[in-house]
Amino acid sequence: MSARAGILVTGTEVLTGRVTDRNGPWLAERLREIGVDIEAIVVVGDRPQDMAAALGWLAAEGVDLIVTSGGLGPTADDLTAEVVGGFQGREMVLDEALRGRIAAILERLARRWKDLDLNALEDGNRKQATIPAGATILEPIGTAPGLVVPPASGEGPTIVVLPGPPSELQPMWHASVATEALRAATRSASPIEQRMLRLFGIPESELAESLRRAEEGGPSLERLEITTCMRRAELEVVTRFDPAATEDYQAFATFLGERHADTLFSDDESSVDEQVAALLLRAPRQTLAVAESCTGGLVAGRITDLAGSSAYFRGGLVVYSNDAKVTQAGVPVELLEEFGAVSREVAMALADGAAARLGADVGLGITGIAGPGGGTEEKPTGTVWLSACRSDGVRLEQTITMPGDRANVRDRTTTFALHLLRRLLLAPS
Amino acid sequence: MSARAGILVTGTEVLTGRVTDRNGPWLAERLREIGVDIEAIVVVGDRPQDMAAALGWLAAEGVDLIVTSGGLGPTADDLTAEVVGGFQGREMVLDEALRGRIAAILERLARRWKDLDLNALEDGNRKQATIPAGATILEPIGTAPGLVVPPASGEGPTIVVLPGPPSELQPMWHASVATEALRAATRSASPIEQRMLRLFGIPESELAESLRRAEEGGPSLERLEITTCMRRAELEVVTRFDPAATEDYQAFATFLGERHADTLFSDDESSVDEQVAALLLRAPRQTLAVAESCTGGLVAGRITDLAGSSAYFRGGLVVYSNDAKVTQAGVPVELLEEFGAVSREVAMALADGAAARLGADVGLGITGIAGPGGGTEEKPTGTVWLSACRSDGVRLEQTITMPGDRANVRDRTTTFALHLLRRLLLAPS
Repeated sequence: MSARAGILVTGTEVLTGRVTDRNGPWLAERLREIGVDIEAIVVVGDRPQDMAAALGWLAAEGVDLIVTSGGLGPTADDLTAEVVGGFQGREMVLDEALRGRIAAILERLARRWKDLDLNALEDGNRKQATIPAGATILEPIGTAPGLVVPPASGEGPTIVVLPGPPSELQPMWHASVATEALRAATRSASPIEQRMLRLFGIPESELAESLRRAEEGGPSLERLEITTCMRRAELEVVTRFDPAATEDYQAFATFLGERHADTLFSDDESSVDEQVAALLLRAPRQTLAVAESCTGGLVAGRITDLAGSSAYFRGGLVVYSNDAKVTQAGVPVELLEEFGAVSREVAMALADGAAARLGADVGLGITGIAGPGGGTEEKPTGTVWLSACRSDGVRLEQTITMPGDRANVRDRTTTFALHLLRRLLLAPS
Repeated sequence: MSARAGILVTGTEVLTGRVTDRNGPWLAERLREIGVDIEAIVVVGDRPQDMAAALGWLAAEGVDLIVTSGGLGPTADDLTAEVVGGFQGREMVLDEALRGRIAAILERLARRWKDLDLNALEDGNRKQATIPAGATILEPIGTAPGLVVPPASGEGPTIVVLPGPPSELQPMWHASVATEALRAATRSASPIEQRMLRLFGIPESELAESLRRAEEGGPSLERLEITTCMRRAELEVVTRFDPAATEDYQAFATFLGERHADTLFSDDESSVDEQVAALLLRAPRQTLAVAESCTGGLVAGRITDLAGSSAYFRGGLVVYSNDAKVTQAGVPVELLEEFGAVSREVAMALADGAAARLGADVGLGITGIAGPGGGTEEKPTGTVWLSACRSDGVRLEQTITMPGDRANVRDRTTTFALHLLRRLLLAPS
């Protein structure tokens, strides 16, 4: 039996949808790495009774560990430490040494803000240094300390209390893993393997059929927990299993690899973004430039998300207006007049223009109608043309009619663009 | 007393962090609009016992309504309809008419995929048309029908079952609101007002001090539920209140407006993105062009997120390499040599170059070190220079050292860029 955990994300801003929670998913992944299974992620507002109710449910479910995020700030609506202290049966006490360490951090911060109110800082300092008696302190990255709080009674889950900002929570989680209190709570943890296969250009029902075929006499799936989902126009197949079932997984992965050789592009967690980067960096190294219209910079933005992209990315042209297509990417006016801005011909001219203007080996051109307006019967909203060209003359074009709203069309187009690049870079001369 | 709801998001892909949940927050906002208070958002995996445990907890908390998202697909791991049917004490039955309607949808889809396996489709069709007896059907947008399922016993919450893809869930939610079953469950709903103030360039502790001052003899905060949070480098203050407390809110908003006149930029939910767009569209209309280095297209991407941006956005130059800065944006080589790529001078040349090359009235230039490498003692990682210029000669420059990792530096820089544009567009001639 493995150790189990629940995650409690607090914050009215998360509960009401104004802020997207990044901590729950991140913590789930880290817990899996140390062999702890997740029961649930619960999001509640900054109301103490709701927090306590959620802690009560997770404890009743019999989890060994609860990790909370948020509610450790200096303002009065940040109540997590107090609620957790009460839940674990521990008194709140001001830790003078901790108060001094936080004060030193505040002093450094104060130099960056002029006209800072020192009384405000002092009150917040006091609040943040008041912690449940007997808790293990995780040193602050910002100004909020984290806590590992075992139950005073010895019965029930240990609670790890972390601040909301991911840049603070993440290093403090790693610190918490090293504490004796957390190790004691997760003693029964046993590692779980997780592997991912990624496919592109295949509907989910095809994969469902493959799973049924496997069940009817293919590799045994009994010891594998398989889930599938569509994400950013790609199909992800994630399998979790006990390390003892590794051979079963390998047989399953081979089975899928044979059935879906044309659409399975990743079996090692690598993203298409990373694969394109690796292909550009192969000897002889090639450089890349893009000219994009409907995606408005998102393709360049996605390429430059990767650190080190300056080694192959020359730059991009966001040619939103027709004028810009002509002056910046060198698209002939006649092409725009004859075929329209959203056409195979203009996509090709954009790819060629990007490569020529920016002196790159590989060019990518994108033009489309992101919506909500702008569609016609012949070219409905969501119509996109993509073109990619290589200095040896090999080139690929593609058109798709994307479903969904403006944001969806733009986001999915970036995935299609990266897959077109991947295919181009893999194509023989 | 107001109606209360819980949201149950299912999907191992969400629980384990591979996919970010967009439905919970979206549903929370919609529920608030119809006057239903949210108790909690719970995320569980595709394990029926975990789903049932979460439903059990939310029901025990006494909510009037539970909305679920996900787990309605054609594959065997999609079990939500069955679990909800069991929880509400209703038998699962195949609805033949619904099966026919889904089959018609599948037939249309089948034309888009070649080599489609029809057996796979048929099995999925049968599964998706098997629903709890007595449930109200929400017609599918994709292939999955939604459901409104009251408890067979008449005791306990009504459950609205919606599919996971946001493009399906959103219209189907609106359909569910019109059903008799949902109206019956939310009869006690009373509207809650929610207002947001946005500030830029102020630490959270300053605001905490303002809240304390209000409590010590300022406007009454008793009937206001106030939460504050930092998001994308902006400070958001959200207040929820009963419509009867509207005057209290107005007094509070006026109090903050007076104390923070220089940093409060939005009191009507408008984002800085929307404000910049509105300022550009004022008569005489002005056009915009950007040249960006470290943000690699994200600023252009953010500007073109808004539908209608083609009315003022001329285009962008993603000048990632020094060569591109010279050839595309016309930055003099001497400036790069004398001051370095990350400098006030180069940011100014980028702004001027963007405006000149793309024929725009307003130019924006961005250059910085996003990291993780590339920092020096003099210019550490996170150093960014921004410049914005107007055709009448007014211009603004700014430098910041951004905290956080590469993704953080890039994202925060887009917010600073938009605020610099806002200030430039508001500046007198």
